[in-house]
Amino acid sequence: MPKTNPGRFFEDYRLGEQIEHAVPRTVSGGERALYHALYPARHALTSSDEFARACGLARSPLDDWAAFHVVFGKTVPDISLNAVANLGYAQGRWLAPVYPGDTLRAVSEVIGLKENSNGKSGIVWVRSRGLNQDERVVLDYVRWVMVRKGDPAVPAPDPVIPELKPALSVEDLVVPEGLDFSSYDFGLAGERHRWGDYEPGEIIDHTDGVTIEEAEHMIATRLWQNTAKVHFDATQREDGKRLIYGGHVISMARALSFNGLANAQLIAGLNGGAHANPCFAGDTIRAWSEVLEKGKTAAPGVGAIRLRLVATRGGAPGALRDGVGKYLPDVLLDLDYWAFFPI
Amino acid sequence: MPKTNPGRFFEDYRLGEQIEHAVPRTVSGGERALYHALYPARHALTSSDEFARACGLARSPLDDWAAFHVVFGKTVPDISLNAVANLGYAQGRWLAPVYPGDTLRAVSEVIGLKENSNGKSGIVWVRSRGLNQDERVVLDYVRWVMVRKGDPAVPAPDPVIPELKPALSVEDLVVPEGLDFSSYDFGLAGERHRWGDYEPGEIIDHTDGVTIEEAEHMIATRLWQNTAKVHFDATQREDGKRLIYGGHVISMARALSFNGLANAQLIAGLNGGAHANPCFAGDTIRAWSEVLEKGKTAAPGVGAIRLRLVATRGGAPGALRDGVGKYLPDVLLDLDYWAFFPI
Amino acid sequence: MPKTNPGRFFEDYRLGEQIEHAVPRTVSGGERALYHALYPARHALTSSDEFARACGLARSPLDDWAAFHVVFGKTVPDISLNAVANLGYAQGRWLAPVYPGDTLRAVSEVIGLKENSNGKSGIVWVRSRGLNQDERVVLDYVRWVMVRKGDPAVPAPDPVIPELKPALSVEDLVVPEGLDFSSYDFGLAGERHRWGDYEPGEIIDHTDGVTIEEAEHMIATRLWQNTAKVHFDATQREDGKRLIYGGHVISMARALSFNGLANAQLIAGLNGGAHANPCFAGDTIRAWSEVLEKGKTAAPGVGAIRLRLVATRGGAPGALRDGVGKYLPDVLLDLDYWAFFPI
Repeated sequence: MPKTNPGRFFEDYRLGEQIEHAVPRTVSGGERALYHALYPARHALTSSDEFARACGLARSPLDDWAAFHVVFGKTVPDISLNAVANLGYAQGRWLAPVYPGDTLRAVSEVIGLKENSNGKSGIVWVRSRGLNQDERVVLDYVRWVMVRKGDPAVPAPDPVIPELKPALSVEDLVVPEGLDFSSYDFGLAGERHRWGDYEPGEIIDHTDGVTIEEAEHMIATRLWQNTAKVHFDATQREDGKRLIYGGHVISMARALSFNGLANAQLIAGLNGGAHANPCFAGDTIRAWSEVLEKGKTAAPGVGAIRLRLVATRGGAPGALRDGVGKYLPDVLLDLDYWAFFPI
Repeated sequence: MPKTNPGRFFEDYRLGEQIEHAVPRTVSGGERALYHALYPARHALTSSDEFARACGLARSPLDDWAAFHVVFGKTVPDISLNAVANLGYAQGRWLAPVYPGDTLRAVSEVIGLKENSNGKSGIVWVRSRGLNQDERVVLDYVRWVMVRKGDPAVPAPDPVIPELKPALSVEDLVVPEGLDFSSYDFGLAGERHRWGDYEPGEIIDHTDGVTIEEAEHMIATRLWQNTAKVHFDATQREDGKRLIYGGHVISMARALSFNGLANAQLIAGLNGGAHANPCFAGDTIRAWSEVLEKGKTAAPGVGAIRLRLVATRGGAPGALRDGVGKYLPDVLLDLDYWAFFPI
Repeated sequence: MPKTNPGRFFEDYRLGEQIEHAVPRTVSGGERALYHALYPARHALTSSDEFARACGLARSPLDDWAAFHVVFGKTVPDISLNAVANLGYAQGRWLAPVYPGDTLRAVSEVIGLKENSNGKSGIVWVRSRGLNQDERVVLDYVRWVMVRKGDPAVPAPDPVIPELKPALSVEDLVVPEGLDFSSYDFGLAGERHRWGDYEPGEIIDHTDGVTIEEAEHMIATRLWQNTAKVHFDATQREDGKRLIYGGHVISMARALSFNGLANAQLIAGLNGGAHANPCFAGDTIRAWSEVLEKGKTAAPGVGAIRLRLVATRGGAPGALRDGVGKYLPDVLLDLDYWAFFPI
């Protein structure tokens, strides 16, 4: 029996199974600094302890996507090592800020299984949760992946497809305890546009671009302890390219979106997301956003805006799909999320 | 009205105007470690808490240039986003050490304006200050940039050119509270040359070289939240090159200068500086210094030396300008600064 | 007299001489995060404060190899700046964990000298120790290097070759105070194989590969304040390549070995090591291990396993030398070490 982890195949998952993912991780100011070094992140709440305190938090939390990547990375060896494709996300919620000093671990529950008609692979739905050292759930999301079968002879399980919301509603979102935007400093935050200045249908071109290097995306992906071979090993593909972790594109696009969405201080919900095309070193990533929906929360001065965040390596802001509904070849990411804004 | 920041044009500046720059930043051991990873920095005072305590400080401060870059980075969106050229620095003073845990913000005052005779651009002089969470000024410097006019029809302002010292005198420098070099450990610091061993006119070849990669300068420049497009976006120039942030060259040259100036423990003043030629990935940076002037401070065992630090990508130590006074093509940086040494 | 450090030549070493190396270094969560960003490190004890506490430690220590690199880096300017070759390691022992906040310095004693028959160089054996801020030795190892003579006319010293153990025995190893694996969580650690599951002679293929970039190995090597020119300066070699610091390959191989040796939580001893062939950017590093020997310690639940760790850029697991005993050209590292495992 080999000592190394071959990963799980489709037939290895059981409906309702709880998977405790390995290698808990303590984060510090180091992860925080690296996040700012790898992405042009400038949102004030995750940049300054003083700004965060003025908004009612204990201090500046780790970027919400950094928390996501740490949790996601832990799930990779059990969920997606043999995945053919990362198909989607739904019902993601950030439930508590993650601070330097916190230790995160991850657990997943198998909530859906459906073998493909070819009998060679199947779709696995998991609900993954990140927990901190106090066993508090800080993040909760559903993702589904296509996984190869190890033994095609194993019979297909009864198909169970979980019912998933196309999008969370404002009521589903959880505002961090104490968050208060009533004396929000727009000057220090970098832009004067408040919740009321954004309208559904509005398209925002974030204008800046970043050309990606191999060293950068590998440093980032290792930082999240994501071990998928394709990100690191140039011998895995015929063309010698390393596939960039989709989460790297998410964080890059989110950071670029500062220019136009500087007051989108916290990520609250993940409604869905597609890694529309693979991203490689040398690509220059740009981003645009579309305002989808708005709502108010019960917290003082805290509004929520639902946004589509699109990362591209070219093309005009707003251009997403071709005539038959297929993503344009330069579209890398199509993300649907909720963020908290000062009203 | 677009939501993104178009930057300011020449006609947008008013004499005496105070600009509060956005996005305060809390630094930690993470920024400290990254500084050591990006530059071959080895000065003992910014490397070891124990060494710093033995010199009278609370603990090891962040490198003085790291503090400069954080403050400088905050000024970019308001001062140099539409700058055609970064023309000079003067009267820079480090007024208090920056420690992990400190939160920095920046403010600038417009102290000079002069439209160019072509009517298409002008020169803006600003005095920028970095403040910590206690509202204490930690850094203060003047810089001037050439900025494009957005609308050439706007009439020129009355020209005001601030009077700037060609160099600070020793009396202008501020020694960090408590600094005491009277029991300085030259062995741990790495070199035995003290203040008395340097003489004006002396040229020091720092001998080492570092070949720069795209990933490194982008990681550094993002770390300082400097957002100028030309550093990150390979599509901004015909040749696909990314222009390296001048501050990256400063820090690289300063770190290389350890070899010969290991006891130049703290940067005290910035008299002037020119980014003589653009620097690109692939360049191998070397450095040499010239001793310009010396003085003593009132602090125990603390002397000051004024140095010229030159970064090159080739050429002999001491070679700076051609016959008509133009910088040689391999000279990247000509910096005039004061440092504190043990006497 | 030049102000820069020319390094020591063979004739500059005296038997019994104590060398106090320069530039103490305080490590923080920043160094910890960078280690995880540069290597695919996932061992739970150096990843999670909670996991470390459950094993009886105060919190999660810095990776043992990071501690080694910091100490090693300090010795470079005095020991290997003019070294022609790094010949070997022996009797290395990690004596106490290094935690964020600790300050390390290094001292070496010259324990052997032997001039080569060509009269142009000689071999220097040193015993180097790393000490923390409490003057506690945290690491102790012997290494020997071939060093050029500065002046061939200086007569050869009496040859003294230290007696070195081919390998430490289990009794030589020092278990960190308080370490207790009796309630070890194999699920959180990532693999279920315990001490009893490994048998001498067993070969483990760690399966993963990482393609190395210039930016990464330079960032790592600078982080350890290792200043050897060949790692940074592309003009040092005819082919423009930068030689990768051997310690970078050690850490990469150790991190890759998680896959099959996830429970090798602490490095206890370094019996020997050879950098079999030079490593350059573009190489894809893989690793395999051979179980050499086993023993138990007095600490609760703590066993020791002696392992050979081999890093390669190709070739089959187990393939090490050719017919005449020479390392195969794709072998980069052959390391012999002891690690602590849960029994």
